[in-house]
Amino acid sequence: MSKHKVIYDTDPGVDDAMALVFQALHPDIELLGLTSVFGNATIETTTRNARFLAGRFAPGVPVAQGAAAPLRRAAPEPLAWIHGDNGLGNIAIEAGLEAPLDARPAHRFIIDTVREHPGEVTLIAVGPLTNLALALTDDPRIASLVKQVVIMGGAFGTDGVLGNVTPAAEANLLGDPDAADIVFGASWPVVIVGLDVTQRTIMSEDYLASLRDRGGGAGQFVWDVSRHYQAFHEQSAQLKGIYVHDSSAVAYVLAPHLYTVRSGPVRVLTDGIAVGQSIQKPSTMPVPAPDWDSRPEAVVCLDVDVPGMLALYEGTVCGTL
Amino acid sequence: MSKHKVIYDTDPGVDDAMALVFQALHPDIELLGLTSVFGNATIETTTRNARFLAGRFAPGVPVAQGAAAPLRRAAPEPLAWIHGDNGLGNIAIEAGLEAPLDARPAHRFIIDTVREHPGEVTLIAVGPLTNLALALTDDPRIASLVKQVVIMGGAFGTDGVLGNVTPAAEANLLGDPDAADIVFGASWPVVIVGLDVTQRTIMSEDYLASLRDRGGGAGQFVWDVSRHYQAFHEQSAQLKGIYVHDSSAVAYVLAPHLYTVRSGPVRVLTDGIAVGQSIQKPSTMPVPAPDWDSRPEAVVCLDVDVPGMLALYEGTVCGTL
Repeated sequence: MSKHKVIYDTDPGVDDAMALVFQALHPDIELLGLTSVFGNATIETTTRNARFLAGRFAPGVPVAQGAAAPLRRAAPEPLAWIHGDNGLGNIAIEAGLEAPLDARPAHRFIIDTVREHPGEVTLIAVGPLTNLALALTDDPRIASLVKQVVIMGGAFGTDGVLGNVTPAAEANLLGDPDAADIVFGASWPVVIVGLDVTQRTIMSEDYLASLRDRGGGAGQFVWDVSRHYQAFHEQSAQLKGIYVHDSSAVAYVLAPHLYTVRSGPVRVLTDGIAVGQSIQKPSTMPVPAPDWDSRPEAVVCLDVDVPGMLALYEGTVCGTL
Repeated sequence: MSKHKVIYDTDPGVDDAMALVFQALHPDIELLGLTSVFGNATIETTTRNARFLAGRFAPGVPVAQGAAAPLRRAAPEPLAWIHGDNGLGNIAIEAGLEAPLDARPAHRFIIDTVREHPGEVTLIAVGPLTNLALALTDDPRIASLVKQVVIMGGAFGTDGVLGNVTPAAEANLLGDPDAADIVFGASWPVVIVGLDVTQRTIMSEDYLASLRDRGGGAGQFVWDVSRHYQAFHEQSAQLKGIYVHDSSAVAYVLAPHLYTVRSGPVRVLTDGIAVGQSIQKPSTMPVPAPDWDSRPEAVVCLDVDVPGMLALYEGTVCGTL
């Protein structure tokens, strides 16, 4: 089969870094570029980290710098207690490896790259959706030229959980709810990989140690970068391991059969105490709902084959696929 | 054990009627009164139906008429396609059986009755929560005098479902979201029995036929009153049976061990496209959430022992407990 041509829109971020390793090492993914966005850290930090990650794991892949703040709000505070002061779990970031910085802003890089490969590009977006919304606003026709958009974000309550930052909102959608509502309203094929599946998928400390011991430099990096992140999970969720957020979006691209999904339009609340919440109208719901009915259907992941997902990641990092 | 002294706040309604039969026949419940509210039908219809139901199944129990409309909105249209034109599945409603109508409005009846039995009254509320909010507004101190408040309403997404009237809202909470947010914010012990458990609890046609054949006049009534309601379920949900909404609140009072619950403050959205949605902040969630944190904890039902619930209802109607 032909490779998935991917633009990775990212705010590294520890799990962003782990998902970059996944994409860089999997033989079926061809990375066309990374686009950075504010989110887990400032845009300066996430761009620096994206350039480091691309330079180390995907040499030759360019990085374009994206939005520093949401469309209509102030930039959030960096999540240093989750991702470390440097956004990468406080590991040492080697100088000299940085990927080249593309001169274009991220949304223009997305537009140009999609137009160079019509019908072929998969966007994997794992931060606030500002860059994607800006690309749509500047050039709405790219919606029909993208192969698919796979997003880590949101939550639909199947574990009784609607959010991880507020009782209603997940971090990436809350990061720019206006952008998210634009992205989910565009006529491109959208898949949403939210907390319903990412918080069911847990890499235990033993699993991560196995990657460290068997995965060469990449496995050692995954271990190192996740130490601070695991400490956060232990403290906040009494978890001897970590949730697998961003890598789950990559896994969906590679192995959609691992996911149980539901179709239907999705809205994101942009005001009120539940701002940032994602709400799907399932396509099977019989009642009219004007705020949803005029919008395209999105695919929402509700469940996941956890062992299958973990085996895919492990096989990729350890080279045993 | 002493009986549960219950005020049943209701908008009959087919499932309201089935829950009234449940309460009237169960030996551990002492009905102190019924209070009517708009909702499934107009206040005139629900009051007439409440008087008929009390007169037939709970002779001597008074009915007080409640709110005709929500606190701050227009009254909704009657749900005739669900509950029939007469609110009771279009069965014949015999004249001459009507329970006496109390002279007080429902919220005053609630206040007076709670004050007559301090610490003893359970409120079972299965319609819009207007009467309860009015009672709290008129006499906030009743919150500390009520034993517990068990509400059928809302949804918390554990089946991926947040609502049945809109993608976000369940009918009773949407019926008066302002009242619901008041009721969930008061310092009384609140239990919320929502779609998470009521849509998992299904009375099949065979189950209902068994009640008809083994439950005497009450069983025949449950069968008759549910024919139109079942046709609605068959048409809207491809279900050869019915969801068990209001009777699930009664079952919680009688057998709370049948339910898996979670504690934490609950808000109801009062504006926007998700108006009427209920959102709990689980008490285990570590992040601050000012819009929730100042409010008392409520108990939300997330799962149910379905066979146990159905056996309890059947045993009550058929007299085989």
